[in-house]
Amino acid sequence: MKIRIVTIGKLKEKFLIDGVNEYLKRLKPFAKIEVCEIAECKTLEEEGQKLLSQVLRDSFIIVLDVAGEMLTSEEFAKKIAALNLHGVSDITFIIGGAFGLSDEVKRAASFRLSFSKMTFTHQMARLILVEQIYRAFKINRNEPYHY
Amino acid sequence: MKIRIVTIGKLKEKFLIDGVNEYLKRLKPFAKIEVCEIAECKTLEEEGQKLLSQVLRDSFIIVLDVAGEMLTSEEFAKKIAALNLHGVSDITFIIGGAFGLSDEVKRAASFRLSFSKMTFTHQMARLILVEQIYRAFKINRNEPYHY
Repeated sequence: MKIRIVTIGKLKEKFLIDGVNEYLKRLKPFAKIEVCEIAECKTLEEEGQKLLSQVLRDSFIIVLDVAGEMLTSEEFAKKIAALNLHGVSDITFIIGGAFGLSDEVKRAASFRLSFSKMTFTHQMARLILVEQIYRAFKINRNEPYHY
Repeated sequence: MKIRIVTIGKLKEKFLIDGVNEYLKRLKPFAKIEVCEIAECKTLEEEGQKLLSQVLRDSFIIVLDVAGEMLTSEEFAKKIAALNLHGVSDITFIIGGAFGLSDEVKRAASFRLSFSKMTFTHQMARLILVEQIYRAFKINRNEPYHY
């Protein structure tokens, strides 16, 4: 399974860089995962186009959207397992920037995922995402996860 | 406003320690906030009793519970502002350990707050909580918050 996380802007806080890197390292045995950071643009539309330009053909696109569907960690794990079973070998997660997501990005989404009704910084969302992806692989492999 | 966060166990990951400390520092101008870490116990009931023993009389208790009520960040900010308006000067947040919360703790809660349908590590929950408390103060003071 190949996973690409496409985001706006670089992580600024050192603790978030360290946290995201820690989970990327833990994910290495399970998936080929990479993070692609796009520079902030002047308009949402431009940002959307830049985000989508990083998505590979045939990739399943999951967009993080506060108005999207909420899943439990187990449901999220099942979703990833089901995609794998159906021959999807490439998933792209898109995290918008501080100003949200363009309509074009929302329309391109194969699935819109909401972590919470609460607003998180998009930087924090990146940390939560990699932890949930890691958790999903642990759940799907029936491996213990200490939390 | 005094805020106390009562939790099970010490933070283990350095990036989480750094992240929580960063938000505690940013919160200093707004509230007297302290974190109280209880050692893990053999039973949920014992853990619950130890958690509750750290709650001051007349404190408003908010328990983090995946089955609790979900609020937007704005609703959470309003809740804190409303408590303040009604003369509540002390709020205690309780975060359970890896095995959850005893019934006694759930019963003692003035409010049960859920961040997400997803399961987060209780360590990660601590980081999300301090960020949301900081965000709530920024919202209530009409101050800009870059995210």
